[in-house]
Amino acid sequence: MFIAMNRFRIALGKEQEFARIWKDRETNLPQVPGFLAFHLLRGPSDEQCTLFASHTVWASREHFEDWTRSEAFRRAHGGAGQSAGLYLGPPQFEGFEVIQEITGTTP
Amino acid sequence: MFIAMNRFRIALGKEQEFARIWKDRETNLPQVPGFLAFHLLRGPSDEQCTLFASHTVWASREHFEDWTRSEAFRRAHGGAGQSAGLYLGPPQFEGFEVIQEITGTTP
Repeated sequence: MFIAMNRFRIALGKEQEFARIWKDRETNLPQVPGFLAFHLLRGPSDEQCTLFASHTVWASREHFEDWTRSEAFRRAHGGAGQSAGLYLGPPQFEGFEVIQEITGTTP
Repeated sequence: MFIAMNRFRIALGKEQEFARIWKDRETNLPQVPGFLAFHLLRGPSDEQCTLFASHTVWASREHFEDWTRSEAFRRAHGGAGQSAGLYLGPPQFEGFEVIQEITGTTP
């Protein structure tokens, strides 16, 4: 399993606008081979910005990399950068391999 | 849903030792109310260190906070800091609220 995260530093007061952009986007992710789940995460705020992260779980790093080479990926990222004043700097990508897993027994 | 992450900067060459500490630990997490899943993640390396992250999914922030106030939490963290030379600095905690979810349709 592989988790692809992009960290976004969003200007204070722009959090709702940022969340709306994600909510309104069209995505074919559920049909992409190896895609397991996507979550948009809201993290802590400091004096400058609020941290958000896109968090996508893939069956493997290879599935993720295949997707990044696809036409669907290029389309999905074609509109990036058009919302001036929202972002404090470019997103920061981090890819993680799952090396240990423990699952819950509670409902 | 709430994701609690701790980021660890691990000295180069110490990755296996760090992973073993996590693998060998005893945990009662599966019995904790609201616990959904734990993953240990291996991230990118740079010239100094390899990034790891503990990644725990909870039903809510409240469940996570209840756990941090429990005796089980204190016991689980009693041994922290005893592995000199492994860590480049203290872990960095980040808590994330899930604000959007898309799940896959592929097996």
